[in-house]
Amino acid sequence: MASGQAIGVFDSGVGGLTVLKEISRLLPGENLVYLGDTARVPYGTKSPETVRRYALEAAAFLVGRGVKMLVVACNTASAVALEALQATYDIPVIGVIEPGASRAAGLTRNGKVGVVGTDGTIKSDAYARAIRAIDPAIDVVSTACPLFVPLAEEGWAEHEIARLAAEEYVGPIRNDIDTLVLGCTHYPLLKETLHQVLGPAVELVDSAEETAKIVVQYLGDQRNQSQAAKIGFFVTDVPTRFERVGSAFLGKNLGDVQQVSLPDKI
Amino acid sequence: MASGQAIGVFDSGVGGLTVLKEISRLLPGENLVYLGDTARVPYGTKSPETVRRYALEAAAFLVGRGVKMLVVACNTASAVALEALQATYDIPVIGVIEPGASRAAGLTRNGKVGVVGTDGTIKSDAYARAIRAIDPAIDVVSTACPLFVPLAEEGWAEHEIARLAAEEYVGPIRNDIDTLVLGCTHYPLLKETLHQVLGPAVELVDSAEETAKIVVQYLGDQRNQSQAAKIGFFVTDVPTRFERVGSAFLGKNLGDVQQVSLPDKI
Repeated sequence: MASGQAIGVFDSGVGGLTVLKEISRLLPGENLVYLGDTARVPYGTKSPETVRRYALEAAAFLVGRGVKMLVVACNTASAVALEALQATYDIPVIGVIEPGASRAAGLTRNGKVGVVGTDGTIKSDAYARAIRAIDPAIDVVSTACPLFVPLAEEGWAEHEIARLAAEEYVGPIRNDIDTLVLGCTHYPLLKETLHQVLGPAVELVDSAEETAKIVVQYLGDQRNQSQAAKIGFFVTDVPTRFERVGSAFLGKNLGDVQQVSLPDKI
Repeated sequence: MASGQAIGVFDSGVGGLTVLKEISRLLPGENLVYLGDTARVPYGTKSPETVRRYALEAAAFLVGRGVKMLVVACNTASAVALEALQATYDIPVIGVIEPGASRAAGLTRNGKVGVVGTDGTIKSDAYARAIRAIDPAIDVVSTACPLFVPLAEEGWAEHEIARLAAEEYVGPIRNDIDTLVLGCTHYPLLKETLHQVLGPAVELVDSAEETAKIVVQYLGDQRNQSQAAKIGFFVTDVPTRFERVGSAFLGKNLGDVQQVSLPDKI
């Protein structure tokens, strides 16, 4: 693993920028390449078969650019395609499910963990399986929250509408759980709203943060200390919308974003 | 145009079923073939270039099945791809924009028409152009409503959340317009909510209904009177979700739905 090589990060769209942001914060000397599959976003409503095909195509693009590690910064793709990706490539492939699950299992005191995510992530049961693999005694309650992504993208994450939606989705489990996994990269934008609805007794686990920590662990002492590290952005649709919504996710301007076509899986 | 041939209807997903339903109601003797591009849904957040490519691929599939007419039952695709489709194929290609625009221009008394739709449809300005082509004196106010599609698909079209979202989107223009075009095939599911927010003085124009009337006009006396007309359903992702959400749109079970791969544009 040549330390000058970039770390590849991919997501269905802009959401994975929350993961990229954390990696860049913890590892400012690493070159990063981000791919958002914006021509086919979202993955969360699509079948495991289709998401797996898209993930393999996205990975083929990044591997084709010589990345030293692949971070699947999309919960749905991590849930249904991680094994296929790991079986296809020799470089480390890191998903967001394990890191979030592991943190949640370590945090819960009453053994009751909630998980929120897209339809695809929740149906895969990946978080529940990962949490129970760590501690079979933990009770996991999973809820799909399809409105959260459009609310975050509309800039309404802290609007009364988001509060009402959160009330519908997690209100019913508020008094049972003491830990909630934000199982979608968009959901950290709703942290404040979820805190209000759930109250201070429920801890929120941000998979983006946990995943970045795992990337740091993986690199160990091989991390790049470049003073001139670069972040390259690639998307599959024209970049206009990605640049606009993405800057809200990253908290700064993205700079140059290139549109690309994806190769078939290698 | 052989009368036994089917009418092809396509949409990015399930939304176009509102158009199919109207065509089937007015023309119960016609064979219909519906294609939902569910592996790449939605179109409304994507660029004109990408939507045009997807629309040409969807049309190639239906034309390959020998349809006698193509109905673009997706407002975004109608807004950005209708001309490309008409230039590519010799059969009639009917979009949903013209019929809705024409109805709105005929209905308005105060010359102020509102249009609601996806980001892509509103950015294209297609409704405003079509309405002004009929009557340049009509004032058109257009508003993108990205939350309406996920609200309809979540089954929350008449929930308090939908009312609040409608209040945000169309509340500000309530007192100006006397006609509102529902410029997205999902929006007829929000009719009741929009009526509540807009009050009885604002007429709602349903493009699905208007488009079906145009299809009837096009066929004239060549319409099929078959007693055994069939509707075939095709999707690009696995059919499970389409079958579930689609039956709510169509008001009945869809029967057999087949997954297909789309050919490149012919």
